[in-house]
Amino acid sequence: MIIVMRPQATPEQINHLCEKVKELGLTPQVSRGVQKTIIGVIGQEDKLRVKPLEAFPGVEAVLEIQKPYKLSSRDFKPESTEFEMPNGVKVGGKKIVMMAGPCSVEGRDMLMKTAEIVKNNGVGFLRGGAFKPRTSPYDFQGLGEEGLKYLREAADKFGLMVVTEVMDTRMVELVARYADMLQIGARNMQNFDLLKECGMAKRPVLLKRGLSATIKELLLSAEYLLSKGNFKIVLCERGIRTFETATRNTIDINAIPVIKRESHLPIIVDPSHGTGVRAYVPAIAKAAIAAGADGIMTEVHPNPEEAWSDGPQSFRAEEFHALMDDLRHLAKAVGRDL
Amino acid sequence: MIIVMRPQATPEQINHLCEKVKELGLTPQVSRGVQKTIIGVIGQEDKLRVKPLEAFPGVEAVLEIQKPYKLSSRDFKPESTEFEMPNGVKVGGKKIVMMAGPCSVEGRDMLMKTAEIVKNNGVGFLRGGAFKPRTSPYDFQGLGEEGLKYLREAADKFGLMVVTEVMDTRMVELVARYADMLQIGARNMQNFDLLKECGMAKRPVLLKRGLSATIKELLLSAEYLLSKGNFKIVLCERGIRTFETATRNTIDINAIPVIKRESHLPIIVDPSHGTGVRAYVPAIAKAAIAAGADGIMTEVHPNPEEAWSDGPQSFRAEEFHALMDDLRHLAKAVGRDL
Amino acid sequence: MIIVMRPQATPEQINHLCEKVKELGLTPQVSRGVQKTIIGVIGQEDKLRVKPLEAFPGVEAVLEIQKPYKLSSRDFKPESTEFEMPNGVKVGGKKIVMMAGPCSVEGRDMLMKTAEIVKNNGVGFLRGGAFKPRTSPYDFQGLGEEGLKYLREAADKFGLMVVTEVMDTRMVELVARYADMLQIGARNMQNFDLLKECGMAKRPVLLKRGLSATIKELLLSAEYLLSKGNFKIVLCERGIRTFETATRNTIDINAIPVIKRESHLPIIVDPSHGTGVRAYVPAIAKAAIAAGADGIMTEVHPNPEEAWSDGPQSFRAEEFHALMDDLRHLAKAVGRDL
Amino acid sequence: MIIVMRPQATPEQINHLCEKVKELGLTPQVSRGVQKTIIGVIGQEDKLRVKPLEAFPGVEAVLEIQKPYKLSSRDFKPESTEFEMPNGVKVGGKKIVMMAGPCSVEGRDMLMKTAEIVKNNGVGFLRGGAFKPRTSPYDFQGLGEEGLKYLREAADKFGLMVVTEVMDTRMVELVARYADMLQIGARNMQNFDLLKECGMAKRPVLLKRGLSATIKELLLSAEYLLSKGNFKIVLCERGIRTFETATRNTIDINAIPVIKRESHLPIIVDPSHGTGVRAYVPAIAKAAIAAGADGIMTEVHPNPEEAWSDGPQSFRAEEFHALMDDLRHLAKAVGRDL
Repeated sequence: MIIVMRPQATPEQINHLCEKVKELGLTPQVSRGVQKTIIGVIGQEDKLRVKPLEAFPGVEAVLEIQKPYKLSSRDFKPESTEFEMPNGVKVGGKKIVMMAGPCSVEGRDMLMKTAEIVKNNGVGFLRGGAFKPRTSPYDFQGLGEEGLKYLREAADKFGLMVVTEVMDTRMVELVARYADMLQIGARNMQNFDLLKECGMAKRPVLLKRGLSATIKELLLSAEYLLSKGNFKIVLCERGIRTFETATRNTIDINAIPVIKRESHLPIIVDPSHGTGVRAYVPAIAKAAIAAGADGIMTEVHPNPEEAWSDGPQSFRAEEFHALMDDLRHLAKAVGRDL
Repeated sequence: MIIVMRPQATPEQINHLCEKVKELGLTPQVSRGVQKTIIGVIGQEDKLRVKPLEAFPGVEAVLEIQKPYKLSSRDFKPESTEFEMPNGVKVGGKKIVMMAGPCSVEGRDMLMKTAEIVKNNGVGFLRGGAFKPRTSPYDFQGLGEEGLKYLREAADKFGLMVVTEVMDTRMVELVARYADMLQIGARNMQNFDLLKECGMAKRPVLLKRGLSATIKELLLSAEYLLSKGNFKIVLCERGIRTFETATRNTIDINAIPVIKRESHLPIIVDPSHGTGVRAYVPAIAKAAIAAGADGIMTEVHPNPEEAWSDGPQSFRAEEFHALMDDLRHLAKAVGRDL
Repeated sequence: MIIVMRPQATPEQINHLCEKVKELGLTPQVSRGVQKTIIGVIGQEDKLRVKPLEAFPGVEAVLEIQKPYKLSSRDFKPESTEFEMPNGVKVGGKKIVMMAGPCSVEGRDMLMKTAEIVKNNGVGFLRGGAFKPRTSPYDFQGLGEEGLKYLREAADKFGLMVVTEVMDTRMVELVARYADMLQIGARNMQNFDLLKECGMAKRPVLLKRGLSATIKELLLSAEYLLSKGNFKIVLCERGIRTFETATRNTIDINAIPVIKRESHLPIIVDPSHGTGVRAYVPAIAKAAIAAGADGIMTEVHPNPEEAWSDGPQSFRAEEFHALMDDLRHLAKAVGRDL
Repeated sequence: MIIVMRPQATPEQINHLCEKVKELGLTPQVSRGVQKTIIGVIGQEDKLRVKPLEAFPGVEAVLEIQKPYKLSSRDFKPESTEFEMPNGVKVGGKKIVMMAGPCSVEGRDMLMKTAEIVKNNGVGFLRGGAFKPRTSPYDFQGLGEEGLKYLREAADKFGLMVVTEVMDTRMVELVARYADMLQIGARNMQNFDLLKECGMAKRPVLLKRGLSATIKELLLSAEYLLSKGNFKIVLCERGIRTFETATRNTIDINAIPVIKRESHLPIIVDPSHGTGVRAYVPAIAKAAIAAGADGIMTEVHPNPEEAWSDGPQSFRAEEFHALMDDLRHLAKAVGRDL
């Protein structure tokens, strides 16, 4: 940690600060520059987190040197995380993992039809919301446990894994009973109690990046999960909020190489929600794989016109088939399988 | 609702869409322009929400005309919401409401000292976190129920009202036992289960705007509370996320006149968290009152250097006293009391 | 154009507005809905631009239906723009166009070395700044005309095309004397006099997206060029400004499919400036091609450690060679050449 | 300057970097921490700007300690800048400076009427655009020199000062012939040639913050002006671009206390352009003054319905009069005059 003093800082203020640093068992190193004095602190930065150094008189800025996340960092674990699901699908490996299904589970029939499309295209995960986070209280909120049952039934029939969102700490146990992977949505990325609860669940977790979350914050939210003992974590980029309005959100493809360098965790991309426009999904899915993503989550619906939510971004069966062909071709070109 | 068709849309596509609109009991009005055809839909837009109109072939864009929030809208309730707390403090009235206290409850002594400062300055609410949303799992997470007890004790001793954050649906009942007003933090603004639970609690709610939430989304989150029967809601602007780094967040003062025009709900501002720098808090508190805010929430600490969280933005007793004097003076100039 | 009236709008206000619309030779269509009245306007929206409709009493919002850009729109020209440079390099065609070189022209020797690397990798354009837009007045501002001479000499020796930035209307003629393509930088995307001047120059123009420019605004800036008769325009995505700090800017890969759908103009990507970190450039270059970009602009330097500006994002010769191999491979997989 | 090395950095890499630092006449100070080595550099940071330190092998990050702006910094000049205009109006002093007028000069008559309103309200500056930066090439671009003549005539008749925008380096001399203060618009904040040219003009300059410019960049653009010898500079906050759409831009009131602390230059606010909605202008103007702004620039038009640009945000005469009354009252409460 580096403490930069204001040009007007007095020797007393500098000494006062050095004393406080020493009290914590750390070593201050004072460098007097032409214009400013800086104090380097050697030792575990964690100890300094309990003191608000910026509140000390004479301090201009405090710069962190060490990264605040540990278990999710590639410094901690240099090899990439890879794990296998009960149906044999591997996450984080050479093979790109695909997750597809409707935005919401609307009923048994449509889900069965969707699961069949999903299965026929060689996809390993069936996605679909039983509990839906909706901006308006007047919008469809999901079928709840009924939806979970349909997901399980459809998945079992076609040998798929279920990934579905859990929104409430009280529902983690219930959702974990039906799902193979728990999804934490973008709006809940910093719902810290939910993170803790999912960190203790015996299920892998898909953690979506919040709409205004930095990559550092995403890794810190992952840290909540890892620090509770759950290491089967998949990160998901699904778009950040910017001033651009041509797309619903701005999918941050740059996050892929950044996360690959900073962390060992697998990262997938959800172009359906991020762009909000079906026509843009193939380009972004391809870009994600080219940039090094480990998977793609996308929406498929047997009849998007009749969808109860987010129809505009869902693929029809034949469109999805074409997309899968394209992605398979591209994956090869970057040394991956699909 | 207005449906804009692509220039290439066929008559069949237009007819198909009109049929669907009629099936919902609504009336389509087709206008053929020089370049494009548009379809106006007359009737309750809510009915259309269940159909993803953008997914229909030939559709370029769908424009909503009606506002998606109702109970929180000033169209629904033209007069401003005003309510009284058990200690006689009014919220939303001519008198600016003040809420002050430490970021976190660190112990009984410091809280008693803070409450005394708060009381001596004529402030009605004691704020302080017992459950803390922290970006890192390794940071101090709050004293929990112990903190709530100290808050209650201090508030009772000095005749103050307690406003404190609840982060988890499972904790709403517990927090409501000790607190007079429940706070929903910025990171939980779209934790919809928490909103529903707080909407059913018998306590007023302070709802903070999320870091990347639009004003419309804030009002929709308030709608979750109102639609569960809780009308004692206070909105709080605490800064949005932008590219600027000189302040921790960008307090959006513009939100005040916008919300005052769109909604009947009171709006307060939290300049401590938003700016992250003590030196900027007085200017922003004054700006908020001048712009029409109904209250200010700010951090006070008997000894900011020793604070466990957010010391850099907390006021010392004498600084807080000076701020209160300034604000009182300013409030008069804009026809308010404090 | 759609005019939405406030719920409280009076019949007089609605009539007043309809009269004004008719005075302009347009046809108003009034639809009285359950809550609001809307007025559709049929005819050329351009005529309405001279009247500030939102300023009329009773008006809540004015929604544009037609796109404000014309010549740059794919509605105007459905086939993609493609043109050939004097050295035979095609822009906008099946073959991905590459532009490489140093951030700044630092001297004759380094430029000759760079041009050789560029040529040896089959790249058609030599890039390099002679006039540099620098945030600080104390930073290196470029060699000026001397730099232009070196660029021309190096390009002629190796059969390359020169693309270089022009920052000032007074310099357009000078730069056009040495350069084969004029670059308008991100900070000048809305320097409208410069756009007009370049629109009249007899050189193709590379127009970079501004850091906070929407795609619509980028196309409107292109419209300035096209409306002056210059149709050899290339757009360039180079990153927008967001809250994320792990990369210098956020390259908006989503802009590629959006622009491809909205406009006939070629779009290239500059991952060097956008990410600001060499390690992330290959991933983003690949993503851009996978998403449908028509070219890549990147920085190469014989010795990045000694560069005068932006060394951290420049490739060494061998790194650049490896990148070109990767991109060639990828281009094939998406049906392009390189 | 602080150089943070990667955990894997070798002693050779560290030595290599220290050698380079010494070659520049600076002193490296190496601190070996538990996880990372950092190198503090003592001496003028400017020397290091010519070396791209991040490009050196083993370097993780480079942190600047000194501020890149000098002449615009309050460290350089502790007392606030204040200057007087030829008509006796003071800028930067205790008295709030007001600038009012139409968005565009539309003709002689309307300008005379506007100038009279402006004068009658005790305003010192007449604003109005003769050269208009318009997003679309098809929108009204201003009357040019004719507009400048009307501005001069109206100002002379009523004893006002003219502030008007200059967009092109070639026009600086012409505009300076008619105007008392040159305005550099938000889109030209980083048009560095224009900054240099205005820095050499014998006129005070009003520099507007760019839509995605940080406060640091605004001060660096001011530095361009100051370093050319022009010290009569006024900064103007006019809104930044965020995800919020309820207002055209987000006026960053926080920038006022930040700039007041960092710089000695006066700062004014333009709420008309920033909010884009007349109804929000009074609240933001008041907030600006309460936060410490030195002036307000606002739009007035004798008949906003007939304005050629930006009518929705212009005040009518009687509204402007009411605003001035309110602001005068508020200014007193914060120890200022108006």
